[in-house]
Amino acid sequence: MTEDAKNSTNNITWHQPTVSRSERWKARGHGGAVLWFTGLSGSGKSSIANQVDSMLVLNNNDNDTTTTTSSIHSYVLDGDNVRHGLCADLGFSLEDRAENIRRVGEVAKLMADAGTVVLAAFISPYRVDRDRIRSSLEGVAPFCEIFVQASLGECESRDPKGLYQMAREGKIKNFTGIDDPYEEPLNAELILDSNSKSVDELAQEVVQWLQANDILKIKDS
Amino acid sequence: MTEDAKNSTNNITWHQPTVSRSERWKARGHGGAVLWFTGLSGSGKSSIANQVDSMLVLNNNDNDTTTTTSSIHSYVLDGDNVRHGLCADLGFSLEDRAENIRRVGEVAKLMADAGTVVLAAFISPYRVDRDRIRSSLEGVAPFCEIFVQASLGECESRDPKGLYQMAREGKIKNFTGIDDPYEEPLNAELILDSNSKSVDELAQEVVQWLQANDILKIKDS
Repeated sequence: MTEDAKNSTNNITWHQPTVSRSERWKARGHGGAVLWFTGLSGSGKSSIANQVDSMLVLNNNDNDTTTTTSSIHSYVLDGDNVRHGLCADLGFSLEDRAENIRRVGEVAKLMADAGTVVLAAFISPYRVDRDRIRSSLEGVAPFCEIFVQASLGECESRDPKGLYQMAREGKIKNFTGIDDPYEEPLNAELILDSNSKSVDELAQEVVQWLQANDILKIKDS
Repeated sequence: MTEDAKNSTNNITWHQPTVSRSERWKARGHGGAVLWFTGLSGSGKSSIANQVDSMLVLNNNDNDTTTTTSSIHSYVLDGDNVRHGLCADLGFSLEDRAENIRRVGEVAKLMADAGTVVLAAFISPYRVDRDRIRSSLEGVAPFCEIFVQASLGECESRDPKGLYQMAREGKIKNFTGIDDPYEEPLNAELILDSNSKSVDELAQEVVQWLQANDILKIKDS
């Protein structure tokens, strides 16, 4: 080993150039954020989140009134892609549900820090769990609680996965809305009326709200 | 509720436009990938990963011979940003280490799917843990095992955090390289000679290797 090389490797511990969050976000053209869709099973959380994702990534928002035409880097996190992977070791006990939401919150935080607009679609029935994620995002990225509001009757009549019927028959225990509570948000940034509006209409509402409130604007800290 | 609205909400379960991985990657201008830096404590994994991150995000690669000048969306995952969050509940037992690496692998998979070039810097001493992540990435995104090779003597002489000394004094148990094994990669995609080369040189090697092998090229599936 040459002396020069030796000297440079001795520097290995302090030589750590780190890209700042705002540098990273500027390179992406927009900031990261966590849009947290909460609501009963069947309320439309995943459908709306996926439609928003499509509008942001593929930039096919007809009502876009801004001058930018570039794609927004969003990504949907939902039960399908975490229950089979990151949280495959967890069940549906009170403790496991809390741990599930905790981990998703941490992943959402990392992805938002990286500059992604995270569209998280989880029933997440307890206020304490959602508020914990809101707190953990403080100083990192905007956390936007989006309440996908649909009546229990409406959700039960949709029953896309047949889960309400199974819960009514006692085949599923602790099912949110049936024998486990759903705690409605008290200070949601946005409330979507899923009783009377379509997925397309509600996704448009979300995108327009993002634009109107400059949620993805990079603020120098 | 109007009949039209009622009809559209009845569609809520099947109306789920989902952006495909290749559509998402194309919108980003490059594919996702997981670059997994493994090696002894003090070998330079984090320093090199951060330098690569800086070169990719800020596009300050002097040796860039490609025509593209756009930023690459990378992100460093390391102990600092997961041990305090996602894996804050885990210790350093054999089981907890395995679970730590498993969760990081799952997060890396989600981020790569989203189109991020994940730079994961973890000692990850066991082949079985690294191979499990390699398998789970199959069909999703390239997994590139990067062995940051430095002799135990070299790492111990650097001892950036004073951990080797504590391990030698018996104040830390099961420390990789001292009283716990490090299983060297058998089929690493890239081996970095951290004994004799600087962080800058090795980071350049990684970026040039990425380019030469078209790792971030989007292949239509």
